[in-house]
Amino acid sequence: MNKPQNPVSPLAPERFPDLPLIRGAEFASGAAGVKYKGRTDVTLVRLAPGTSVAGVFTRSSTRAASVLDCQAKLAGPVDSSAGAAIIVNSGNANAFTGKAGQEAVDSVTGSVANALGIPRERVFSSSTGVIGEPLPVERITAIVENLAGRLDPAGAADAARAIMTTDTFAKGAAASFEGDGGTINIVGIAKGSGMIAPDMATMLVYIFTDAQIAPRTLQRMLSARVDRTFNAITVDSDTSTSDALILAATGQSGAAPITDLRSAPARAFGKGLEQVMLDLAQQVVRDGEGATKFVEVRVTGAADNADAHRVAMAIANSPLVKTAIAGEDANWGRVVMAVGKSGAQADRDRLTIRFGDMVLAENGWRAPAYDEAKASAYMKQEHLVIGVDLGLGKGRRTVWTCDLTHRYIDINADYRS
Amino acid sequence: MNKPQNPVSPLAPERFPDLPLIRGAEFASGAAGVKYKGRTDVTLVRLAPGTSVAGVFTRSSTRAASVLDCQAKLAGPVDSSAGAAIIVNSGNANAFTGKAGQEAVDSVTGSVANALGIPRERVFSSSTGVIGEPLPVERITAIVENLAGRLDPAGAADAARAIMTTDTFAKGAAASFEGDGGTINIVGIAKGSGMIAPDMATMLVYIFTDAQIAPRTLQRMLSARVDRTFNAITVDSDTSTSDALILAATGQSGAAPITDLRSAPARAFGKGLEQVMLDLAQQVVRDGEGATKFVEVRVTGAADNADAHRVAMAIANSPLVKTAIAGEDANWGRVVMAVGKSGAQADRDRLTIRFGDMVLAENGWRAPAYDEAKASAYMKQEHLVIGVDLGLGKGRRTVWTCDLTHRYIDINADYRS
Repeated sequence: MNKPQNPVSPLAPERFPDLPLIRGAEFASGAAGVKYKGRTDVTLVRLAPGTSVAGVFTRSSTRAASVLDCQAKLAGPVDSSAGAAIIVNSGNANAFTGKAGQEAVDSVTGSVANALGIPRERVFSSSTGVIGEPLPVERITAIVENLAGRLDPAGAADAARAIMTTDTFAKGAAASFEGDGGTINIVGIAKGSGMIAPDMATMLVYIFTDAQIAPRTLQRMLSARVDRTFNAITVDSDTSTSDALILAATGQSGAAPITDLRSAPARAFGKGLEQVMLDLAQQVVRDGEGATKFVEVRVTGAADNADAHRVAMAIANSPLVKTAIAGEDANWGRVVMAVGKSGAQADRDRLTIRFGDMVLAENGWRAPAYDEAKASAYMKQEHLVIGVDLGLGKGRRTVWTCDLTHRYIDINADYRS
Repeated sequence: MNKPQNPVSPLAPERFPDLPLIRGAEFASGAAGVKYKGRTDVTLVRLAPGTSVAGVFTRSSTRAASVLDCQAKLAGPVDSSAGAAIIVNSGNANAFTGKAGQEAVDSVTGSVANALGIPRERVFSSSTGVIGEPLPVERITAIVENLAGRLDPAGAADAARAIMTTDTFAKGAAASFEGDGGTINIVGIAKGSGMIAPDMATMLVYIFTDAQIAPRTLQRMLSARVDRTFNAITVDSDTSTSDALILAATGQSGAAPITDLRSAPARAFGKGLEQVMLDLAQQVVRDGEGATKFVEVRVTGAADNADAHRVAMAIANSPLVKTAIAGEDANWGRVVMAVGKSGAQADRDRLTIRFGDMVLAENGWRAPAYDEAKASAYMKQEHLVIGVDLGLGKGRRTVWTCDLTHRYIDINADYRS
C-alpha cells in the first residue's frame, strides 16, 4: 500500500495567526530525530519565576508516563518562585512503555531542570507518537542544552510546528484584552488531527498568558471551560493515551492580579481564554483525518445539559451520519437514529431536526415543507450546521466534528509502516 | 457517484444451511414492490394455535412503530389458542413516520388478521428500510390474501431472502436435539449487515421451534442469551430504530413441554437456541458493510462481566482498531488505547494483549518475544482473534466485529439516492 500523502486540510484557516508575545514565556524548537527526519520535533518552553501552571489531561486508564508525571506534579505542593518549564517531543508517545516510561520522563525532565536551573518538580513533559516503542531519551537530552541557549519570546509559532505529527497545518490562537492596569495577552498552540486518534494523533495544547492568577484560580478557570471546548469536539470517538492541555500564567503583564472570579478582569480573561480554547479545538477538528466538512451539531431543548451532550456526541460520532455527510446526502433519518441510540430522554413527537435554517423533520415526521433538492444543495457547503431540538427542557450543547471519508481509512489503515 | 455494487461478502458461509421443518410454522414470500423491483420483499408467517411468542427489541428512543406495536402486544394478556402471525416487509422502515406509522401497522396487521382469522393482537410486524418515508401500506395489503393462500412449511429459506436489504447473502441457522419424547428443532433466519446500521441495515431475526414452552419461560430463555449473542456483535456502533428478534414456539414436536429451566431438555433447548442465535449473529457480522475480516475480541480477567463487555466493545467499535485491521497492520497500541478509553477498571502493568496465540504485550510493555514479522503475517488471515487479559478478576466477554474499509464508506456515503 502506498503511504498516503498529507496535503493541507481543505478546512485549514487561511494562515497561521500573528501571536502577541507573552512576557515571561520563551520558546526554542529543534530537530532531535526522535522519529522524523528533516524537521523539528522537540520544543522547550521556559516560564519565568512566579508562573502559575494548571492542566487537564486524558482520563484514559492506559495514559502515558508523561501524563501521569504532569498530574502528580500539579497535585503536589507548588513553589512557583523558581519558574517552570515544558518540554514536548513528537514522534514517540512513550506510552505503554512500562516502568521504563517513567524513567524516560525523569531523564528528560531532569535534563531540562539541570539546563535551566529549575526544580524537576516544575518541569512538565509531553510525548506524542507511536505507542509501545521505547523513547529514545538520549536524542532528546542531547539537544536540551542547545535549546536552552536560544530561547526566544517569539518562538511560539515554531513550537506549534515542532509538536505536529499527522497534522496538516500548525495551530495557534490568541486573545488580548485590557486588564486592570495593563493589556493581558493569551496565546495558545495545539496539535491534533483526531480528537483523539492515538499513535500520531494525540491532542496536545499549551496556552500561555501574562496575566497574574494563582494556580488554584487558574485551574478553576481552565476546568470550567473544557466541557464547552475541547470536550465538545470529536473526530472519530477514539481517545488518546496522551491528551494534555497545560495553561501557564506568567504574571508579567503589569496588570493587577486576577483573584475574584466575578470581577470584570476575571470575566474578560475567562472570555479570552474560552475564545482561544474554542479556536484551537475547532482547528483540531478542521485538521481531522481526511475531513472535508466542518460540522456543527447544536442540540437544544434537552432535559438537561448532560443529555444534550449525549445526543450531540451520538450524532457527531455516528459513522453513518459522518459517511452521509461525506457523500453530501441529507440523510436526516440517521440523525433520528443517533438521537434514539444516545440514551438521552427523547420523544419522537417533540423532535425537530434542522440542517442550517431548513426544518427537515418535526412533530415526529418529515416536515411538510421538506424540499429534497434544497436539502441536497445545502449539503454541498463546507460548513454544515445540524440542529436538533428535543422539545423537552432547557439543556443545550454544541459540539463540532468532521465527516468520515476514504482518506481517514487511507491514513489509518497502515499507519505504522 | 456510481452506486456501489453489492458483491457477496468474502466472509459469507459457503452455502445457506438445510433447515428442518418446524411443525406449526408456515411461510410465504412475495413481491409487493415496496421499494425494490424484481425481488420478493414481503414475508408472511403463520404460527399454529398454541404457539408461544417471545421477543427482544431495540432500546432506541426513536424506535419504529412496528417495534412499539410488537412490544405492546407481547406485554398484553396472551391468548395463544388462536395462533399467531408475523409479517415483515423490506424497503421501508416505517420509522419516524409520526401517527401515520401506527396507522400503517394497524392496517397491515389488520389485513393479516382478516386473511388468517387470527386476532390482530397476535399479529406481529416488522419493517426495514428507509426512515421517514410513509409506508406504502396498500402495496403490502394487496398481496396478503395471495400469501395466505400459499403458506408452506418449507418456506423459511425464501423468507430469509425476502427480508434482505443491503445484505449480500441470506442468513439461516438450525439446531435439533432429542427432547423428552421426540426430536425438537430450532430454525432461525436473520437479516442485517450493520448490527445496527439504520436505513436499510436494521437487524431482524425470527426463530421458530416446535418445542412446547409457555410464553414466560420462553421469554426468560431468550432474554438470558441475548447479551452473549446479538448484543455481543457490532459493525459500526450505530443502533437501528427497528431491531427486532422474535422467537415462536409452536409446541408441535410431540416432545413433552419444557417447564423446568433446570431440566435436561431445558438445558438442551437453551444450548440449541444459543447456538442458532450465535450462528445468526455471527452471520450478520460476516455480512458487515464492506467487511473483509471477521474479528473475535476475547476479554478475560476483567473486574466483572460488565467491565469485560465495555472493554470488548471499545475495541470492537474503535475506528482506529478497525482501520488497522483493514490494513492488516498489527497495531496493538490501538488496542491499548481502546482499553484505556473504555471506562473499565484497568491496570497497565497487568494487561496482556494477544493476537491469536501470540503475546504482543504484557506487564505494561511490548512482550520480549514480540515478532513484528509474525504479527504482520497473522494479520493476513481472514478470521482474527484479539485477546485481552486485564489481570484483575474473573469477568469475561467475547464479542465479534469486522474491519472498517473503503466499501463501508462507499455503501453509506450516498445511500438514499
